[in-house]
Amino acid sequence: MILELADIRILPGQQAGFEEAITRALTTVASQAQGMMGWNVNKSVESPERYVLQIFWHRLEDHTVGFRQGPLFVQWRAIIGPFFAQPPMVEHFELVGKSVGKSD
Amino acid sequence: MILELADIRILPGQQAGFEEAITRALTTVASQAQGMMGWNVNKSVESPERYVLQIFWHRLEDHTVGFRQGPLFVQWRAIIGPFFAQPPMVEHFELVGKSVGKSD
Repeated sequence: MILELADIRILPGQQAGFEEAITRALTTVASQAQGMMGWNVNKSVESPERYVLQIFWHRLEDHTVGFRQGPLFVQWRAIIGPFFAQPPMVEHFELVGKSVGKSD
Repeated sequence: MILELADIRILPGQQAGFEEAITRALTTVASQAQGMMGWNVNKSVESPERYVLQIFWHRLEDHTVGFRQGPLFVQWRAIIGPFFAQPPMVEHFELVGKSVGKSD
């Protein structure tokens, strides 16, 4: 399992529109991608235009090749791209460890 | 529930020591903090010295006041601080939405 973390900065005042758009893009477009295992969207308390999107992929290539180089990516960017103040910063992560028996 | 995201850059070549230290600091120190609901540690695929720590807090103040201004924080930083290449970048997040029925 690979965790994609996308650090997103949107245009000021566009929070409601962006939250609707990214939820729609995730549920109608990205969810169709092969190896897409789950997602969450989080908004910063300190920085009103900052969001962090987390997507769990089965394999790294499911994101970097299958999704980004396939037809779904065009639809994805058409929905959420207009809200970006700058290109998102995206990296991929492997789990080192996690808590057991707590509500995470 | 509040998600703390800490973006951490460690000194080159210290990965094994840092992973042991942060796991120990989480399980022996941070886990004692009031309102600490769970955690995970993730290492970047693209940037070998980058880690993202996620901690779930019941309330924002459990982290910013209870933990950071309490005696546990000194112990916490004593264990992991020596590995930092620079001060971690930390912000807090509220959940906008997440997938249902997938393995996240």
